[in-house]
Amino acid sequence: MYNRIKKLREELENKDIQAMIVSNPKNIRYLTGLTAEGTLIINKKENLFLTDSRYIEEVKNNLTVEDNISLINISDISRYDYENFLILCNNVGFEEKYITYETYQNYLQLYQANLVETEGIIEQIRQEKQEDEIESIKKACKITDECFEYIIKYIKKGMTEKRIAFEIEKYMRINGAENIAFEFCVASGPNSALPHATPTERKLQENDVLLIDIGCKVNGYCSDFTRTIYLGKASEKFKEEYNFVLRQQKNIIESLKEEKNIIDIFKPIYKAYEEKDFPILHAFGHGVGLDIHENPVLGIKKESYLKENMVLAVEPGIYIPKEYGIRIEDTVLVTKNGCITLTKSAKNLIEIQL
Amino acid sequence: MYNRIKKLREELENKDIQAMIVSNPKNIRYLTGLTAEGTLIINKKENLFLTDSRYIEEVKNNLTVEDNISLINISDISRYDYENFLILCNNVGFEEKYITYETYQNYLQLYQANLVETEGIIEQIRQEKQEDEIESIKKACKITDECFEYIIKYIKKGMTEKRIAFEIEKYMRINGAENIAFEFCVASGPNSALPHATPTERKLQENDVLLIDIGCKVNGYCSDFTRTIYLGKASEKFKEEYNFVLRQQKNIIESLKEEKNIIDIFKPIYKAYEEKDFPILHAFGHGVGLDIHENPVLGIKKESYLKENMVLAVEPGIYIPKEYGIRIEDTVLVTKNGCITLTKSAKNLIEIQL
Repeated sequence: MYNRIKKLREELENKDIQAMIVSNPKNIRYLTGLTAEGTLIINKKENLFLTDSRYIEEVKNNLTVEDNISLINISDISRYDYENFLILCNNVGFEEKYITYETYQNYLQLYQANLVETEGIIEQIRQEKQEDEIESIKKACKITDECFEYIIKYIKKGMTEKRIAFEIEKYMRINGAENIAFEFCVASGPNSALPHATPTERKLQENDVLLIDIGCKVNGYCSDFTRTIYLGKASEKFKEEYNFVLRQQKNIIESLKEEKNIIDIFKPIYKAYEEKDFPILHAFGHGVGLDIHENPVLGIKKESYLKENMVLAVEPGIYIPKEYGIRIEDTVLVTKNGCITLTKSAKNLIEIQL
Repeated sequence: MYNRIKKLREELENKDIQAMIVSNPKNIRYLTGLTAEGTLIINKKENLFLTDSRYIEEVKNNLTVEDNISLINISDISRYDYENFLILCNNVGFEEKYITYETYQNYLQLYQANLVETEGIIEQIRQEKQEDEIESIKKACKITDECFEYIIKYIKKGMTEKRIAFEIEKYMRINGAENIAFEFCVASGPNSALPHATPTERKLQENDVLLIDIGCKVNGYCSDFTRTIYLGKASEKFKEEYNFVLRQQKNIIESLKEEKNIIDIFKPIYKAYEEKDFPILHAFGHGVGLDIHENPVLGIKKESYLKENMVLAVEPGIYIPKEYGIRIEDTVLVTKNGCITLTKSAKNLIEIQL
């Protein structure tokens, strides 16, 4: 992990920041591999991990000399020691997007330092994935694909959304996922018209649309995946709408490529939505990694350029209030020449007779 | 729910705060019953819920006239409208313990208001539970008890901690829990010496200590429960240590009562630990509700008085590094005359022959 702290030190130097207090557990995990609660301090000379008695044993077992991190039990130090950690630093970065206003005030008191915003400096680094990170995401995607194949055979008339969501979680956990990546959306019939529906006791009926948005974690890294299936024989209107979403999703994936400006990719997609008069209820996608939602956000709000080894979820959808929703989502890896789809399930409309 | 907003308005008036921006989803759920993402604004005249297109349909379906909440889609308003929501308010409370430093800066810009800290005003109100809240916690405790009874029959030699944790989750979900209350601790052998161990691939062996810290949610409300069992025949030393923890736990529960000062309850417990030379690695308990960890914290750090209808988790433990840990925890309800234990599983030492 030490190369990641080194990279962070370079980026801090570029911003003229002399030290940093890292509080976000995902960022600490990224930089150190540690999952214990605590605070990482990068000062001029050293890297310190401050934790409490609950985690000391665990952290001792996990750190090696190569990690180059000094472990500190906060019960062993006085409040005056905190100032010394950051002594002679003209400015000290903090995570304004993570810590609460109260914690900010506490840090001011405790460290007596000139705290400066870091604008998601670590999250920025995290956008371009390293090989081991991509491997973990690929594993999570593979489990997700296999799970989808399993689940479309499993569903039956009368089953509740909750039952299906739980079966998905069970499959993922038994088959190597350490956890689910987020609360699933398993939404049937009119529930599928709510972009963020959570599973209910509603039972599957004939002619339901069934929208399944799922993902799991491997080594902390997420997959993100959605398919919409039809329980019965879909109408021509539905098929047309489904194919509209599918076309947009394929168009987006084909345009993703290193160095491309995100706005340029999404302008024609917005136009296609406008032409059909479909409202746009959410972004077309987002970065995926240790967090299920990372930057960049895929849309036309903010200029930004794609980079090699970004991992993105691409998820256009349309929603007909009180009737149904259609969303198709894959996790993809951006490369020099285009992008590789990591979730590989087929995406032509599936019609299932219950 | 409207009585809860009324109570909040009274408390704000006591603090001379004229309006409040509520951002914490648990607090919004408590006050309104809504689980959609958004911001609740309590101004001089009205209650406003600001949300976005993803949630509008869902919220419309859930609100009634009695809720007295105006729904606002943030896509329908301009940035100048935000100022108007809080116009003529000399000061506006915000949740300094919840919102990030960045969000605080955004609020300043957006609402152009004199923001003042509220010191957990809603969390304070949430400490004393209402009847429906207690009912939900009781249900969560009942599921947890039944689950424990099931799981001690289920465990077998060679099973991994992860397998057991998953079986617990499955049982809870199938039997009425909407979710688990936190990542379980299912820790065997030396892993049990880590107060916050997460389940690993370690397999159960003879003469393992097995520490199970579990809980589930019903209507958003948590249960919290721990038992430590011995897989084999426990030594006299272990039995003594177990009975030490059990004695402390019973002593605490017997002392909990409305109007008692928490420090007075815990001074003798600290003394008992000191006499035996057991280090104290974590607090002896905490409030439980919509959050798994709420105030008050049970220990001798901060003066505070118990109140009727507080729900607390009482969880003394001892930890012998690299060997084992022992913790016993129940969720209890504080009443006028003492307290009622809501998790009812027996707590004498259980020895299981694998």
